[in-house]
Amino acid sequence: MTAAPGTHDPLQDAALMRAALALAARGLGNTWPNPSVGCVITRDGAVVGRGWTAPGGRPHAETEALKRAGHAARGATAYVTLEPCCHWGRTPPCTDALIAAGVTRVVVAMRDPDPRVDGGGIEKLRAAGIEVTVGLLEAEARAINAGFVKVATRNLPLVTLKLASTLDGRIATRTGESQWITGPAARHAAHALRGRHDAVLVGSGTVLADDPELSCRIPGFARIPTVRVVADARLRMPATARMLREGQGPVWIATRPGHPPEALAALQDAGATVFEVAPDASGQGLDAGALLRALAARGLTRILAEGGAGLAAALLRGEGLVDRLAWFHAPAVIGGDGRPALDALPLELLSAMPRYRRTSLAQPGPDLLSEFEAA
Amino acid sequence: MTAAPGTHDPLQDAALMRAALALAARGLGNTWPNPSVGCVITRDGAVVGRGWTAPGGRPHAETEALKRAGHAARGATAYVTLEPCCHWGRTPPCTDALIAAGVTRVVVAMRDPDPRVDGGGIEKLRAAGIEVTVGLLEAEARAINAGFVKVATRNLPLVTLKLASTLDGRIATRTGESQWITGPAARHAAHALRGRHDAVLVGSGTVLADDPELSCRIPGFARIPTVRVVADARLRMPATARMLREGQGPVWIATRPGHPPEALAALQDAGATVFEVAPDASGQGLDAGALLRALAARGLTRILAEGGAGLAAALLRGEGLVDRLAWFHAPAVIGGDGRPALDALPLELLSAMPRYRRTSLAQPGPDLLSEFEAA
Repeated sequence: MTAAPGTHDPLQDAALMRAALALAARGLGNTWPNPSVGCVITRDGAVVGRGWTAPGGRPHAETEALKRAGHAARGATAYVTLEPCCHWGRTPPCTDALIAAGVTRVVVAMRDPDPRVDGGGIEKLRAAGIEVTVGLLEAEARAINAGFVKVATRNLPLVTLKLASTLDGRIATRTGESQWITGPAARHAAHALRGRHDAVLVGSGTVLADDPELSCRIPGFARIPTVRVVADARLRMPATARMLREGQGPVWIATRPGHPPEALAALQDAGATVFEVAPDASGQGLDAGALLRALAARGLTRILAEGGAGLAAALLRGEGLVDRLAWFHAPAVIGGDGRPALDALPLELLSAMPRYRRTSLAQPGPDLLSEFEAA
Repeated sequence: MTAAPGTHDPLQDAALMRAALALAARGLGNTWPNPSVGCVITRDGAVVGRGWTAPGGRPHAETEALKRAGHAARGATAYVTLEPCCHWGRTPPCTDALIAAGVTRVVVAMRDPDPRVDGGGIEKLRAAGIEVTVGLLEAEARAINAGFVKVATRNLPLVTLKLASTLDGRIATRTGESQWITGPAARHAAHALRGRHDAVLVGSGTVLADDPELSCRIPGFARIPTVRVVADARLRMPATARMLREGQGPVWIATRPGHPPEALAALQDAGATVFEVAPDASGQGLDAGALLRALAARGLTRILAEGGAGLAAALLRGEGLVDRLAWFHAPAVIGGDGRPALDALPLELLSAMPRYRRTSLAQPGPDLLSEFEAA
């Protein structure tokens, strides 16, 4: 039995939107430059189709769910975590597909801030006589779409700053020994974090110190390999770096202008994409905002910044550049001569101290993972 | 109905010992130089008496519980968290009181390592025909008796090192601003920690920087005021320090030998107890082990060391001096020019890094409190 138009069970609506949000979360890290969207289609109280944005960003969630629903979509309700698109991109608009399939009600978690949509999808559905509800579980949808929304509204990607330190905030002994402070379970959790981001970002100091591979080494987790970005103002990255020989995913190197073309060519020959970004005030590093805008312009929506201390401090110094922190604390201490997790911000007054709001707490093995949002 | 000798319900025994342990925990911080013991007396399945070591260390738990039980103690079972004493101290032996009251069974969580007891209490009870079981919930009892046991076996008190830092392990900005990094709920939890310890220990640098009162400011929490100990090798502590004018509890100052008597007298006149402790290898500080042994010799069993960075590092450098960590992390960062929680240990290799085992995790307000035991 189909409910009369306008009479809906709010608990059932919320449960189905939660299911759509869970589907959307599956695509995180795999859909850039597109958002990761989830869609659940129900008819007469039964789920007839489910879909989420496919790896690479298409097909869209609605297309996938409609395909599974088939003829059952006629007279059905669609729950989507982001307003359906109404413009032609690399795929036809989802609004047209929903209308053509005969869906009679669409529940939308949040409006799409992309200026090419921005309410246009909702309007188009309503114009076709479809009942549209907007704003169900919007906060949850905003959290999942945070990267896409930040790019659409501020030309900046979502940045999660990930650090792994001792209780006293050290990431290595004074001699530079850093492997391993955290245990295998924490490192596995850190790889899973990589998989939910479009790219990993490190400073070239980290490459020189640890020569990391920077892949998400959890089989099947990152269906679209994580981009590996090195902030390397002085172009110190060697063409023999391990990440250019091993691991999955493109390697991008951001450097300041003015290096000799042959230096760039050596890295390009080794497989890297090299591009220039404005320097910071000192002229020695990169402007953190310019770096992030360049990454957004290249389509990245979710960046996991993994340090070192210089890059982390540069990001924290920027206004609104760091959206989330993921901090692993090992149950150990190194002491005051160890290498700090962060360079100087610098900070004079506690009232100016960046503060965060804890969003989750996990205990991978003996370590602790606290996740935070900018307060 | 009294169970036949030797046939007891192990679940009921455990539940009653847990109750006795909960009573013992109430006395922590208030019974030095005595251990904090809990006692539950049952007869025919009903609790007829409960007691725990009174503030100041006497009367003992058994005495209190027997008093409440009165004639009902005849034929009863007593659950005690530590072997009853069999020697005359400031009170008559508890073994005699249990025998005289007609208790027929005693369940003991752990043997008393004090050489004046050390199994003698158990023997004496058995010689009187009382059925004695030893070792029920021994690990839990060892945790509660840890300070008393460490003094009895090693002439050292239990040391809990408490630190409150940002996520990156800083306790102040580079200009020294430190109040407040953690919030009111964390500071309240820190005061409760003080109340469960016999004494608070700080370095004189902390006194000079913050001029703290160092009391447990939770009304009714610390029935015996917490001793306030300052490690002050160079005798920098001013006789006008706030803790000598305000707050509850004696002030003890440990310094190295050789200061002029008038310098000591000024502090003594201000109400402090001043005593000398061997210097460390540099001659500038105190030997951390010697300091702790001096505190144990004065009767303290549980010390809460609150920093600063120099004292904390000195304690961590000593072999087996720090038993527990209580680390508050505020959801904030200060950066690499802030003041570190710990001075250099120093440490060359990660394999030599002090590691701990997490025993609890709490979220006072926006902060995190992780407690650890030496691994």
